[in-house]
Amino acid sequence: MSLTPLPVFDDVLAAAGRVAPLAFRTPLMRHDALDAAIGAEVFIKPECLQVTGSFKIRGASNRIAQITEAGQRQAGVVAFSSGNHAQGVARAAKHFGMPALIVMPEDAPQVKVDGVLADGGEVRRYDRAHESREEIAADIAKARGAVLVPSYDDTHIIAGQGTAGLEFIEDLSARNIKLDHYISCAGGGGLLAGAALAFEIISPQTKLWSAEPLGFDDHRKSFAAGKICRIDEGAQSICDAIQTPQPGDITFEVNRTRVSGGLAVSDDQIKEAMRFAFRHLKLVLEPGGAAALAAAMFDLPEEAKGRRVGIILSGGNVDAGVFAGIIGKSL
Amino acid sequence: MSLTPLPVFDDVLAAAGRVAPLAFRTPLMRHDALDAAIGAEVFIKPECLQVTGSFKIRGASNRIAQITEAGQRQAGVVAFSSGNHAQGVARAAKHFGMPALIVMPEDAPQVKVDGVLADGGEVRRYDRAHESREEIAADIAKARGAVLVPSYDDTHIIAGQGTAGLEFIEDLSARNIKLDHYISCAGGGGLLAGAALAFEIISPQTKLWSAEPLGFDDHRKSFAAGKICRIDEGAQSICDAIQTPQPGDITFEVNRTRVSGGLAVSDDQIKEAMRFAFRHLKLVLEPGGAAALAAAMFDLPEEAKGRRVGIILSGGNVDAGVFAGIIGKSL
Repeated sequence: MSLTPLPVFDDVLAAAGRVAPLAFRTPLMRHDALDAAIGAEVFIKPECLQVTGSFKIRGASNRIAQITEAGQRQAGVVAFSSGNHAQGVARAAKHFGMPALIVMPEDAPQVKVDGVLADGGEVRRYDRAHESREEIAADIAKARGAVLVPSYDDTHIIAGQGTAGLEFIEDLSARNIKLDHYISCAGGGGLLAGAALAFEIISPQTKLWSAEPLGFDDHRKSFAAGKICRIDEGAQSICDAIQTPQPGDITFEVNRTRVSGGLAVSDDQIKEAMRFAFRHLKLVLEPGGAAALAAAMFDLPEEAKGRRVGIILSGGNVDAGVFAGIIGKSL
Repeated sequence: MSLTPLPVFDDVLAAAGRVAPLAFRTPLMRHDALDAAIGAEVFIKPECLQVTGSFKIRGASNRIAQITEAGQRQAGVVAFSSGNHAQGVARAAKHFGMPALIVMPEDAPQVKVDGVLADGGEVRRYDRAHESREEIAADIAKARGAVLVPSYDDTHIIAGQGTAGLEFIEDLSARNIKLDHYISCAGGGGLLAGAALAFEIISPQTKLWSAEPLGFDDHRKSFAAGKICRIDEGAQSICDAIQTPQPGDITFEVNRTRVSGGLAVSDDQIKEAMRFAFRHLKLVLEPGGAAALAAAMFDLPEEAKGRRVGIILSGGNVDAGVFAGIIGKSL
């Protein structure tokens, strides 16, 4: 299998121009309570405030903006996603006047399904246990002549997600701040890989770390082994957004030489990070969106203590009942 | 009673320099769902993301930065507040190395009391029904030789809060956008008055509106009557932050000629605005912080429909149990 062309920093720069009309430049934020809780000088980029509630609009915009053939534009796009990529694809497709069909699991959070529908996307539900979303999506795409928009293992998706990292570095540089460490959640690894391309060139001193739920720590295992490893069967996590069985081929090829290692946190630690964000940051984070924050709070590498640490808060699409249940309790 | 010197636009400009080192320049945000819900082109400034969780750090910083006499700095500051001003004063006093004592009601949200304590502030609880917070604070200030920092009816407090409006206009202007309407909550009226001074000079086409809870709509009544009116006895509201019995003397003198009128919303409408912010904006708003959003959603003046409307989301300090109870339900 050929992974070429692997994305490069220039792809991230080019993506920035395509992503800007559709995305919000989320702010750079700090908070005293965050520094105290983590024991470092912490900077956050809240992509939960992003259009569609997560960073996924970035990659989707970059990919879909490059569909220029008239027949393809008419046939539109197909994607499979538990929800955040789904919403990004639906929104970007709407922006470019293209139909979108998303294959979503039966147990996807309702808020994510509603987000797709609100943008005029068509939803095809599937049963995680008995159906293959890849096959369903491929069949529909073929029948329609539509373009399949992958959620992470694609040069343009990676480059698009990388614009979040690019903005992070730009906004820090404008304040003459250099990050020592950067923590990003990793589902398929696209958000991390895109940022890695930017950090390598314009912030090479920064060490990068993946953050995952325990049980879905396939990046951590893979970085340690130096090759792609799968999760164990039967893993469970509240992080619906980042339950991937293994890193992508392209994302791992990008990440393996650029990422220092993997961090992992329990569901309880993720819930505590969600409560912290509610209480101090006044931000709504979904479980997967709080993974990097939880990793900084509970699994920070020793060498990062007291240093400058950047954290991306990747999404905020969580059902009200789930959120209420989590913030109403303490550890 | 003399109200001179009334604050002027130059005071807001001067305040901006004093406020900047302590405050966060909150971003300008938009959201498609917000435009659809309100039927206008809506711009928001989320001061819930502000340091201490509300805009109150602005006025407190501007006032306390101007305490330069050594004896006064040593004696520190005293304030009375249901919570947001309390936290702003405690944080600003901490920044300048001064002690702070805050007189807070027994029923203040715990998150606000904790915020004061976390910044080293001293808290004196009082009984709303049987004690006068004004008298308690004045007695303590006198005994200590401390400076009393009022929560709204003060030139420097008003000018400081006005920096939120100033930033709003600046960030819109940078995008070549002129607001037709601007909605701000009004407790004592300081946030609105400060913004009014800025809008008058650099965005004179913008019509200004106050937003209040029904029952505490003293600004609405006062604008309609052309003179300061009090609320009726026995009013109740979930908006702990903006339960003032009447507009301030100075704030009303500033607002009465610059504000077009008052809007008012029910507790249920405020809760619905909080749910909207949770779901779509991924922001945590306290009830008072959602008043302007609720007014835009449920009491928008006819002339503002389809126009450009700015809304300030003033604070996000709400206890977890209260928030969970509100977002877990729908209207």
